Amino acid sequence: MPRQPDPALEQRILEAASRLWARGGEKALTMRAVAKAAGTTTPTVYERYRDRDDILRALRLQTRREMFDALSRTRTLREAVQCKLQFALEHRHAYQMLMDGVAKPPSLHEPWPSFNLMRERLAAHLGGTPRQHTRLTLAVWSLTYGTAMIIIRGQFQGELRTQTLHACLDAVDAVLECARSKHFAPTGPQWPPNLILGEGRQSRLGNGKGNRRGTRMSKPR
Amino acid sequence: MPRQPDPALEQRILEAASRLWARGGEKALTMRAVAKAAGTTTPTVYERYRDRDDILRALRLQTRREMFDALSRTRTLREAVQCKLQFALEHRHAYQMLMDGVAKPPSLHEPWPSFNLMRERLAAHLGGTPRQHTRLTLAVWSLTYGTAMIIIRGQFQGELRTQTLHACLDAVDAVLECARSKHFAPTGPQWPPNLILGEGRQSRLGNGKGNRRGTRMSKPR
Repeated sequence: MPRQPDPALEQRILEAASRLWARGGEKALTMRAVAKAAGTTTPTVYERYRDRDDILRALRLQTRREMFDALSRTRTLREAVQCKLQFALEHRHAYQMLMDGVAKPPSLHEPWPSFNLMRERLAAHLGGTPRQHTRLTLAVWSLTYGTAMIIIRGQFQGELRTQTLHACLDAVDAVLECARSKHFAPTGPQWPPNLILGEGRQSRLGNGKGNRRGTRMSKPR
Repeated sequence: MPRQPDPALEQRILEAASRLWARGGEKALTMRAVAKAAGTTTPTVYERYRDRDDILRALRLQTRREMFDALSRTRTLREAVQCKLQFALEHRHAYQMLMDGVAKPPSLHEPWPSFNLMRERLAAHLGGTPRQHTRLTLAVWSLTYGTAMIIIRGQFQGELRTQTLHACLDAVDAVLECARSKHFAPTGPQWPPNLILGEGRQSRLGNGKGNRRGTRMSKPR
């Protein structure tokens, strides 16, 4: 825990951790390696962060805050998706790190501000409560993630990249249009009432997993 | 190159390479490491495969063949997407390896049979030539990839996984429905005529990159 606040040092530690993760994944993130990459000592890192998970949590919070700040400057769902794609492509390591294990505790029990923003935009476009649109939000989430990841990992460039980004935005509009004209009847099993996402401590997976910290029943919105 | 055909040995080498890739990515794939993991000698591996790229190509061809075999047993676009998701989740390393660098040579200049199957299904549903639906195919591709990857890397399980799979299938139907009712007007720059995907040696990126092996102009289909 911090002896005295030093935001510049903490930022340097987080950036070093992010670089290490990009090169070798989670297992490259030892406290000693982070200290070395940040140009400081292991005890200094321990003064600021309890352990690797604490560093990962700080990185997630930072990415979520930055992404949400960017998204909240947009007005429509399409603009939000466009902004999220741009954020993902400009912060590719932070974005991938955020999404790895996103549905597992502890990430599951943290608020997902950008997910909630998307869900609220869907409710604003379509009526109803945000929570009623969780499944549609999942589809938009998968599409946005897939578009960013196929560009990043598939190494799409130039005109192919431009076309893929527009294909995504047009598909978002199509899904929205279809949902608006009531052509969008969900198939498969009904959404389980106790599957709650993006709502912090109230989040739970619905199938008995990951409920440990989400004991309080939340009121439907 | 093979002294004498030994499919069992080749399969063992490819499986060993796939396991190494899953653990350490492309850089873990040295010929020596592959030989050791396959329980054979480095010269034996060299008798079968020229180098690491040759092994990666054999793995891509195998994954494409298996995926296409599975997809060609389906009848509609929705069934094909469902089948592809199942394949991706059951062969997660092979699928991720296939998609990494998919738009770069040499992968760019290989045929993409499942991509073409999707494009033909779109043409069957909507009319027109398969190539006219390349952009729509890209949207379906991104959505399918994103759904598989968010489940794999986000560690979605149980009911969340089920809902996410259905959200994807419903979104595919929505996009198809929208395209059918002519609500789907592509935005952004027009599709460049010299951006050709999935057609083997005729494939090219349209922006002067990756054209080296795609010199012959192909007739529009």
